Amino acid sequence: MAAAVILEKDRTIDLRRKHIGPSCKIFFSHDPIKIVRAKGQYMHDETGRRYLDCINNVAHVGHCHPDVVQAGARQMAQLNTNSRFLHDNLVLYAQRLQATLPEKLSVCYFVNSGSEANDLALRLAWQYRGHKDIITLENAYHGHLSSLIDISPYKFHQLSDAERNPFVHLAPSPDVYRGKYRADHADPATAYADEVKDIIEKVHKKGGKIAAFIAESLQSCGGQVIPPLGYFQQVAKHVRQAGGLIIADEVQVGFGRVGTHFWAFQLQGDDFVPDIVTMGKPIGNGHPMSCVVTTKEVAEAFTTSGMEYFNTFGGNPVSCAIGLAVLDVIEKEDLQGNALRVGRYLINLLQQQKEKHPLIGDIRGLGLFVGVELVRDRLKLTPATAEAQEVIYKLKEDYILLSADGPHRNVLKIKPPLCFTTADADLVVEKMDHILTELEAALGLKLPTAVNTENEWRKDSMSSCRPMRTDTGITVA
Amino acid sequence: MAAAVILEKDRTIDLRRKHIGPSCKIFFSHDPIKIVRAKGQYMHDETGRRYLDCINNVAHVGHCHPDVVQAGARQMAQLNTNSRFLHDNLVLYAQRLQATLPEKLSVCYFVNSGSEANDLALRLAWQYRGHKDIITLENAYHGHLSSLIDISPYKFHQLSDAERNPFVHLAPSPDVYRGKYRADHADPATAYADEVKDIIEKVHKKGGKIAAFIAESLQSCGGQVIPPLGYFQQVAKHVRQAGGLIIADEVQVGFGRVGTHFWAFQLQGDDFVPDIVTMGKPIGNGHPMSCVVTTKEVAEAFTTSGMEYFNTFGGNPVSCAIGLAVLDVIEKEDLQGNALRVGRYLINLLQQQKEKHPLIGDIRGLGLFVGVELVRDRLKLTPATAEAQEVIYKLKEDYILLSADGPHRNVLKIKPPLCFTTADADLVVEKMDHILTELEAALGLKLPTAVNTENEWRKDSMSSCRPMRTDTGITVA
Repeated sequence: MAAAVILEKDRTIDLRRKHIGPSCKIFFSHDPIKIVRAKGQYMHDETGRRYLDCINNVAHVGHCHPDVVQAGARQMAQLNTNSRFLHDNLVLYAQRLQATLPEKLSVCYFVNSGSEANDLALRLAWQYRGHKDIITLENAYHGHLSSLIDISPYKFHQLSDAERNPFVHLAPSPDVYRGKYRADHADPATAYADEVKDIIEKVHKKGGKIAAFIAESLQSCGGQVIPPLGYFQQVAKHVRQAGGLIIADEVQVGFGRVGTHFWAFQLQGDDFVPDIVTMGKPIGNGHPMSCVVTTKEVAEAFTTSGMEYFNTFGGNPVSCAIGLAVLDVIEKEDLQGNALRVGRYLINLLQQQKEKHPLIGDIRGLGLFVGVELVRDRLKLTPATAEAQEVIYKLKEDYILLSADGPHRNVLKIKPPLCFTTADADLVVEKMDHILTELEAALGLKLPTAVNTENEWRKDSMSSCRPMRTDTGITVA
Repeated sequence: MAAAVILEKDRTIDLRRKHIGPSCKIFFSHDPIKIVRAKGQYMHDETGRRYLDCINNVAHVGHCHPDVVQAGARQMAQLNTNSRFLHDNLVLYAQRLQATLPEKLSVCYFVNSGSEANDLALRLAWQYRGHKDIITLENAYHGHLSSLIDISPYKFHQLSDAERNPFVHLAPSPDVYRGKYRADHADPATAYADEVKDIIEKVHKKGGKIAAFIAESLQSCGGQVIPPLGYFQQVAKHVRQAGGLIIADEVQVGFGRVGTHFWAFQLQGDDFVPDIVTMGKPIGNGHPMSCVVTTKEVAEAFTTSGMEYFNTFGGNPVSCAIGLAVLDVIEKEDLQGNALRVGRYLINLLQQQKEKHPLIGDIRGLGLFVGVELVRDRLKLTPATAEAQEVIYKLKEDYILLSADGPHRNVLKIKPPLCFTTADADLVVEKMDHILTELEAALGLKLPTAVNTENEWRKDSMSSCRPMRTDTGITVA
């Protein structure tokens, strides 16, 4: 049995170099971490050192949650087969998932990964009216499959124009900090949505037809971006007028992480309902499973090709038992409430840090989905990419796991298991404070006097463009 | 907990109709089966009835094998995280898998399904030399993702020409029973391989370049097709001369099922080594996992795009623990040997049936991968599609699960868990004999006198075109 064999770390590294594709990167590649066990928000290495995990949004209800483990183990011993046989777990889980969503999102397709979910979402959209063009956001990442690289500028920005899919169109990321329309704009939601409208018009002029607009409800790899309120409603209006569908990618941000709501798209208000929602990462607390939920209308249109959809592992009784257990734990332990409370606490701490540290350009977040954008200059927004890497590496020395992302890799991403506590938040912020202080001293960075002015206009514009922050009680300094 | 809730079968059906995509088909849709537990080669319904499972090639080492369940449960309780951390299970499993393969196939990418594996194989091939054109076989099925529908005529035959991918080219299925070149052809291997060569020339004339030839080592959904010996060697020569790669899809047929070898591509001889091998279904005995194995050269070319490959669930410690346990059980219980012995026994029984039943047109198989092709007329090969359905439904009444596939849905597919016994084989064949006898009586079908002649030419041509049968000791009547 594997469990009996324990390799020296160097041997593990050697074997990995020999047998694992070199495109599969490892964290802290010059001194990677070997993790042997984990529990809750903690991971332990082979020497027994404990790391505070601030990045694993997959271990949603906490690493190795006993209820989830038990549900999986029990079902594995009883039955694990495909969905061509009737099974209660499949339908009970679908029903349970549906209950968390607006009523019209009632039909599920169970698959194995967020990538499989997004690919199926595209297939549903293409089939719906036979349209082909897709609108995606700048810096978006929707998965590793070939169809998803096509719609993921986060990946394909490295490719030449000739390698890009001509049916894919890029709308600006609705980032009011660094994007095309910022917090000082009178109505960034409309301005960003109008960009989508312009794309639709251009596509129509070329004889194309919009199949779908796809976006994460909150951009994650794209830099923890929170779109302005009303953006998705307006986009949906334009896209639906063109006969297209709205796909909300909740792979990173769903299942209560944002605190106030179970799904991040719900942050926009009850008047916004996507046509397709894709789920992934947290859905099985690490077990490979995922789901696409859509309307009856879209599901029925998918059958008109006459093509069956069969996914060997999708919706198997083990995956569904695990999915049900995850929902149970979220409810039983009020993890959505915890995400709200601890997230609010954490963001307040970080806002205080912003007043102190010139490197902190922006703090944004909802629940336990938080971004800390580091800049060399708060007015020019020069990305502090190297500094973000430095923070990550120094935090690792303090046994805290964090990562940096966004197009400039200068946004510290905090997205821990939802059992994260205020004490954990205190620890991370305390260590970060120390590291930033040292870094700023070394760089000779001081708070510019302009900071107060900058904060002033942000405060003024909050009510119109970022009410979600107010909703969650987050106040900007 | 889900396990505590037990629904009436009608309620399960109602909920399924309401919440599960209608494109997801169920077995025996007018009277579907509700399975609640399974063990070895048996599945049990909610009333306690036991079905002999002849179709679940996913439950490779037997449903709910205790060693596999224990390995999964144990690892789930300890750690389940992504491959950005070092873990022994990942590298030990990769090393173990590599040991089953020719030496040059040394680099693994772990993913979640056969579909993800085939999509990644295409990405590797496209990146290798920047070529775009793919050659696939008639009736092939490689998965449910959009990129794979493109290369799966089994699926896309329903689509219009305009909907087909112009970079995908179809070679005839190397089916010596019903295909373009049959057992009476002097050299079907060369004839079929020359068809691939012709495609390459046509692609070159149009300015295209071959990225890859992809094929299942033995076509499964395509009708349990066994290509003539030497076919793949010749195809590989043509494709590699054009700068393309050979992708062997072992999703359905790998892991010892064919009895004589661990991998079905090895049936062709030691002088055939694919550039990429994709795995799936049996790899985790039902757990969602899969793998792509390739050469160092192909893996290194993949890094030149500068694009990282990250798969959230792929290669997690639980999947790898399960994968290791599956390999252990195959070895410990000599399941490959069992597949060889029981497969040989079963095929001999079926050959005897062929002498008796005019509906049986062809028996073909290797190990526990067996096809029984039903025809209305042995000379015209008229597919007995309705009769195949009838056999399947009648067998279900005898509590035996079998399915029919192939382009005419007239090939009974036998691909049970590898713990299948000779007694199981006796039972299936006995029941099949009874059903065929009744069916033939009702249809007024009798053995044509031509049958002996037909068998004669097959016997003559065996040594040149189908030595694999001889290798496994299968004699044609």
